[in-house]
Amino acid sequence: MIVYLDGEYLPRAEARVSVEDRGFLFGDGVYEVIRACDGGLFTAREHLDRLQEGMRGLEIEAGDAASPDTLLEIAATLLERNDRTEGNATVYVQVTRGAATRTHCFPPGGCRPTVYLSTARFAHPPGLHKKGAGVITLPDLRWARCNLKTVNLLPNVIAKQRAVEANATEALLVRDGVVTEGASTNVFAVVDGELITYPACHYILDGITRRVVLGMAREMGIPARETPIRMEELFRVDELFLTGTTTDVMPVVRIDEKPVADGQPGAITLRLQAGLNERISAAGGVRA
Amino acid sequence: MIVYLDGEYLPRAEARVSVEDRGFLFGDGVYEVIRACDGGLFTAREHLDRLQEGMRGLEIEAGDAASPDTLLEIAATLLERNDRTEGNATVYVQVTRGAATRTHCFPPGGCRPTVYLSTARFAHPPGLHKKGAGVITLPDLRWARCNLKTVNLLPNVIAKQRAVEANATEALLVRDGVVTEGASTNVFAVVDGELITYPACHYILDGITRRVVLGMAREMGIPARETPIRMEELFRVDELFLTGTTTDVMPVVRIDEKPVADGQPGAITLRLQAGLNERISAAGGVRA
Repeated sequence: MIVYLDGEYLPRAEARVSVEDRGFLFGDGVYEVIRACDGGLFTAREHLDRLQEGMRGLEIEAGDAASPDTLLEIAATLLERNDRTEGNATVYVQVTRGAATRTHCFPPGGCRPTVYLSTARFAHPPGLHKKGAGVITLPDLRWARCNLKTVNLLPNVIAKQRAVEANATEALLVRDGVVTEGASTNVFAVVDGELITYPACHYILDGITRRVVLGMAREMGIPARETPIRMEELFRVDELFLTGTTTDVMPVVRIDEKPVADGQPGAITLRLQAGLNERISAAGGVRA
Repeated sequence: MIVYLDGEYLPRAEARVSVEDRGFLFGDGVYEVIRACDGGLFTAREHLDRLQEGMRGLEIEAGDAASPDTLLEIAATLLERNDRTEGNATVYVQVTRGAATRTHCFPPGGCRPTVYLSTARFAHPPGLHKKGAGVITLPDLRWARCNLKTVNLLPNVIAKQRAVEANATEALLVRDGVVTEGASTNVFAVVDGELITYPACHYILDGITRRVVLGMAREMGIPARETPIRMEELFRVDELFLTGTTTDVMPVVRIDEKPVADGQPGAITLRLQAGLNERISAAGGVRA
């Protein structure tokens, strides 16, 4: 597999960063995962704009080396060179502050940001999107800037591991008595025909798929409200689903081993799932 | 400079980790900084035991490759080979979960942890320990497992950067109206002759120097209590100081540009500072 690192295309096994890279020492960087379908990238601009926002948030100045145009071109080259122009794939993009003598504060002399991209083939777990997934609930232990998509991902790693150990697909994170989001997904409920999801603020990542789903709901005439789902109402919702770049719209049919409503994927969930699938497939017609 | 990486001693410029190292992708690792004086390591066992605790906390199993005995031997070799057996130095130790195909949960097939050590010469900013430092206060935005010394350090990086920009030495972090600790230090106050510091729990790192200072206070007959310092009493304390592996005992004489007491280092602070200095110097007599 060929990856991109700091201006070079090279075999993955040869792609190595300095032990002084601030990504390795501090998790001092941001990332994005972009969906590709038949060589076309889905909502790539939105992902790369969010990457820029994250870099501004962390005050990482990478200039042209990590501009949306540069990254789009690298992504297209990687898909081509790795023979991923047919079917589903993902493109991973990470920018860190770069390598410098270790000091907590930003390196006094500055440093050149590290830019890394890779691509991977991608397939959903068979059947799960039709029959629906199980989730667990866990306390949300994360910091107070979850709106930044940084590589400080340990709480997410641990929550996801707990989900895997419980044979669940995702862990829903609970802060102050409400569900904020999943370890790597956003969470939506349907209550009395209305779509509900946690408001975009510093306690969640404003997912690109989340935005697409809210946009589709508007178009389909499904009322939607950005408001927290309280734990005590979580077990009384009519439908529940997850969204994410590699999750699409995933119905949730079990929470902590208890069924959601009748334990079947909901009707609104399946409409939104079909709508999203169409849009992702359509991206295949639009090469990056 | 010679560093150690996964079984090899090599020049720093050649020490590189995979782009798939989970340290780089997730900040999935723990670290320690140990003080060396004339080739002797100060409280090395305590640091390496805490590293083990952190690895247990993250469920990283490195076995002999990162056992305290192995790491002590590597540290001694690095000090020797880099000609750091005289004067002050630091030894940096980092263990990550290792490199594997990117997935939030622990790699299904397991992976070999990455073990990295380096050493650096070390000198205090001249005069600061005598005249005392200035600090700022900032909201504590960190996650709820600050007791683990992980490389998910972005909130600390950002807080330290804010301090540097304000010409301050440290940022005191405030959660729920009390000072928890500094961005890379513990915080002590003296009030009516009594030493006060935040209790060791999941909201702070239980610093090794913090423990040494509490032990010295006991020996010196200075009463000490592990209890939060409330923000409203912060400006009325008699003395304030920071502790840390490279901070030692640092008097704080200004908070957000306002003087602490009479703006001079306090008497108890200076007694503890002298006591710690003696102990660190004594480590020089005990080679690792």
